[in-house]
Amino acid sequence: MPRKSLSVAVCGLGVVGREAARLLHAGRTRWGARLGVPLRLAWVCDRQAAREAKALGLPAAVRRTADFRDVLADPAVDLVVELFGGLGASHDLVLGALKAGKGVVTANKMLLSRHWDQVAAAARTGGAPLHFEAAVAGGVPIIRSLRTGLAADRVTSVHGILNGTTNFILSAMAHGGASFEDAVREAQRLGYAERDPSFDLNGTDAAHKVSVLASLLAGRWFPPQRVAREGIEAVEAGDILWAVRELKRTVRLVGTAVVLRRGPVPLVEAHVRPTLVPLLHPLAGVHGGNNALLVTAEHAGDLMFYGPGAGAGPTASAVLADVLAAAGELLAGPGVGDAAPSSGGPCRAADEAPAAHYLRWRVKDVPGALARIATVLGRLGVSLARVHQDDPPGGGRPVPVRLVTHVAPRALIERARKAVSALPIVSGPHAALRVWPD
Amino acid sequence: MPRKSLSVAVCGLGVVGREAARLLHAGRTRWGARLGVPLRLAWVCDRQAAREAKALGLPAAVRRTADFRDVLADPAVDLVVELFGGLGASHDLVLGALKAGKGVVTANKMLLSRHWDQVAAAARTGGAPLHFEAAVAGGVPIIRSLRTGLAADRVTSVHGILNGTTNFILSAMAHGGASFEDAVREAQRLGYAERDPSFDLNGTDAAHKVSVLASLLAGRWFPPQRVAREGIEAVEAGDILWAVRELKRTVRLVGTAVVLRRGPVPLVEAHVRPTLVPLLHPLAGVHGGNNALLVTAEHAGDLMFYGPGAGAGPTASAVLADVLAAAGELLAGPGVGDAAPSSGGPCRAADEAPAAHYLRWRVKDVPGALARIATVLGRLGVSLARVHQDDPPGGGRPVPVRLVTHVAPRALIERARKAVSALPIVSGPHAALRVWPD
Repeated sequence: MPRKSLSVAVCGLGVVGREAARLLHAGRTRWGARLGVPLRLAWVCDRQAAREAKALGLPAAVRRTADFRDVLADPAVDLVVELFGGLGASHDLVLGALKAGKGVVTANKMLLSRHWDQVAAAARTGGAPLHFEAAVAGGVPIIRSLRTGLAADRVTSVHGILNGTTNFILSAMAHGGASFEDAVREAQRLGYAERDPSFDLNGTDAAHKVSVLASLLAGRWFPPQRVAREGIEAVEAGDILWAVRELKRTVRLVGTAVVLRRGPVPLVEAHVRPTLVPLLHPLAGVHGGNNALLVTAEHAGDLMFYGPGAGAGPTASAVLADVLAAAGELLAGPGVGDAAPSSGGPCRAADEAPAAHYLRWRVKDVPGALARIATVLGRLGVSLARVHQDDPPGGGRPVPVRLVTHVAPRALIERARKAVSALPIVSGPHAALRVWPD
Repeated sequence: MPRKSLSVAVCGLGVVGREAARLLHAGRTRWGARLGVPLRLAWVCDRQAAREAKALGLPAAVRRTADFRDVLADPAVDLVVELFGGLGASHDLVLGALKAGKGVVTANKMLLSRHWDQVAAAARTGGAPLHFEAAVAGGVPIIRSLRTGLAADRVTSVHGILNGTTNFILSAMAHGGASFEDAVREAQRLGYAERDPSFDLNGTDAAHKVSVLASLLAGRWFPPQRVAREGIEAVEAGDILWAVRELKRTVRLVGTAVVLRRGPVPLVEAHVRPTLVPLLHPLAGVHGGNNALLVTAEHAGDLMFYGPGAGAGPTASAVLADVLAAAGELLAGPGVGDAAPSSGGPCRAADEAPAAHYLRWRVKDVPGALARIATVLGRLGVSLARVHQDDPPGGGRPVPVRLVTHVAPRALIERARKAVSALPIVSGPHAALRVWPD
């Protein structure tokens, strides 16, 4: 039975939810004209729903609730926009809506990456559309491009700057020479970083996005726990400045998903690594809080997508585009348009491709310190391309030792990190950066 | 009545058409599974259809014809892929197919830009989908991103490197210091430039793409004749090298479409200009035959799309994605999905935004030459930011004079070009480059 109108519920009225609700309501005439049937905001759901709805000037016809079960229980709701974030309520809302045959638009990368199989199965059961453009790279239409623009192609890999907070911090360190701590504080002041920025800094947020991208590329779930991950907490301005000067490279936190083999159990390489990217590489040209994705497809070749990775405007723009797409599919009936994300058991995680690495320790300023490190590495079979010891900072403070290895398996690099860090001459944390191949 | 299968005709078996036909046929099981109904290649149409079909190993069930009217006359054909290029047959094929309610996928920017209103009206009459991803920037999914990814946003401007041939030539001149003629020959040798490259070099090809983008952004036709246009024929390696050294900028052929006012008769600024772009600007990082588009949307902010602008693989990938999208819409029935391009009379062309310009003439090496040029410009009211005369090349050969103006209206710059070029001390052609604002 063709629908005569479409009712949407926006759940979660944070900065993105408020903007999405506002645009959805303010543009209702335009969306209706585009779709051929009226599209209306039927519910807003939030602990502060009443207050926020009032602040947004929504009419009384838009119902308010603090309990998402009211939304699920309303058979008139065709489409649920989930912007709660995190797990918990979002999980029950998304699964409940999908199973009931309601369309879902979500920006929730944590939910998608942790529960991909459940979510995909529920979408298949209900037969209604599921869209999640805003879950990766904010306003950059990467998910749509992968699902439709490259639908007839085979995308073999994605390499991306997927976290604006860390990119802002790395940019600030590279350009202003700011210390890590100052750069974090500056990011917090400007709203790029949360009060507790650890999920951004340690690569967890990027790993969630890599998991979503890998699952999409491989057609099977790649759980986020299997995304090998290292953050930027140990990176210092000195590492960046030395790499720019000596290696003509700069640091980017790069998320990678490479489909090595397809089939019922796809083999996928997936990781998040602080990476030394050549200065002329497109990813090195991504500054501040922006995101970028390098996509390699069998026929289309190398593409890059670039833009703001977060913020109310860009994210709400992506959410609304998803709402329109889902609305179109709801009107068209099931079975047409985007393939639903597929379930059916996880991918196999491949070993990380071997790479050269930059390693930096701080050692006590004693004669032979460098030789001792080189000896340990040599014994392990780690071959070195470059060795550099900074001028002693004086006052007996430890001095940075910088090494660049030849191409080596990551497992070997990890053994080397452990062995050298255990030496009594070494003090404090150390940095390890993957070197992007030439 | 729901369709039980979909029949596609590929018309035009050049490099892109052959690759599209091959992929369409080879992947038929995959496409059928995705769509839920069989998708089959029913016709190939080309003067050499029989020979090409044989070379591609297509079965006899795929019918061959040299006459596109056979395709139009077959009521079983649901979808026509037009890859004839140019005008003439492509025009009759596309309009005939659309009016008959057949879906159309085309890569033909010339046809779209010259006959947008006719094509859009025919699509509206027939009610079947019209897709043209491959008409702009080859494999880069820019049209889809504008039509769906940013569907809920308002895109206010696009600035793009839309012609791979000229970008290849500019890159070769910048990096190898090649002369213009050598760079053109190298581009021809590598297949980046045609035997007669004038449509690429003089900006006509880019102007067609700007026309398509402007029409899409404004929702009304922007005829290509109204796209102000200058090519790269007068650009010399010396211009680029001087700009890199002295201005920290390099030359790109930039196509621009800016929607200044919406409404029944939108006001749009559209032009193609060799432009001095700052070296750190993303468009300066686009090398070789690649294309790139900087998109500014009201909510999504600044996005960039980047990738191969031509070539059989990327273009065929875009064509096939369009085939799948059109097939999905044909199955869903009319009225859902992408808005058809709109007809209803052309846009109004706005004056070009004022800009600083780099101007270079060659003058006879006589005392006071520079002063004479400066005097002419001063009388016209063109204010100069920089003046430079190269060392005399010797042998009485003319010497380059390089000027950078302050921000000025383009009409004034054109008057200045004419007046200075008419001076008896000036010899040969001159270059004029728009300076991208800081």
